Amino acid sequence: MYEVIPIGLVESPLIDPAAAPRQGDEGAPEAWLVFEERVAAGLGDVVPGAELLLLTWLDRADRDVLLVHPRDDERRPRTGVFSTRSADRPNPVGLHRIRVLAVEGLRIRVSGLEALDGTPVIDVKPVLGSPGER
Amino acid sequence: MYEVIPIGLVESPLIDPAAAPRQGDEGAPEAWLVFEERVAAGLGDVVPGAELLLLTWLDRADRDVLLVHPRDDERRPRTGVFSTRSADRPNPVGLHRIRVLAVEGLRIRVSGLEALDGTPVIDVKPVLGSPGER
Repeated sequence: MYEVIPIGLVESPLIDPAAAPRQGDEGAPEAWLVFEERVAAGLGDVVPGAELLLLTWLDRADRDVLLVHPRDDERRPRTGVFSTRSADRPNPVGLHRIRVLAVEGLRIRVSGLEALDGTPVIDVKPVLGSPGER
Repeated sequence: MYEVIPIGLVESPLIDPAAAPRQGDEGAPEAWLVFEERVAAGLGDVVPGAELLLLTWLDRADRDVLLVHPRDDERRPRTGVFSTRSADRPNPVGLHRIRVLAVEGLRIRVSGLEALDGTPVIDVKPVLGSPGER
């Protein structure tokens, strides 16, 4: 067992899980990522325009779920969670592809984030370029 | 703070961190993912040929590191970890794009995995298709 310690939080107009888009490219709004001071040095190279992968901890997920109807559509057969993007799963890590719009100290404005307001941020990684660009 | 509970382990010929490829598309070998019985129902739709995102917990990482020389190349300036794929970072979640080669019960054979032998597996997700395919 390992401990995940959040490094920040999502600030978003998305409050209601039922009304939130299912993926970032399905009409998700702009949002702020608000980081903790202790990780500031790690953020120094994040600049507007960067394409990043944001990892969150989906703290409202049900960790006991192993089978779901994809997209909550009961006409679709129940499917193992590891073949879906369901938030409900044993370790509910959210993976979001975002673009940085602005950086204001520990606050980073991003586009296209479907995570709910208050969702803990656990990691940020660059989208990998082709092998020659690394 | 949240608890990550591994759902399986990597079995790989990669033992030595210094000799491991840095990314899965840089010559990484085939490996097995060995899952725990309690998550078997969640794996039922994973089939050979599937392209998946594997999330691991990089248990040998240094969680206090915020600045690194990318790819351990000291000629490259020190860079904030959130703009690199360094394993060393506050929450060392590894993100790996893999292809399923074979499924044998709780053992799944995959290609192109740079994670070391014994690395804990924490989640598996499908690569998202275009919006119309979801």
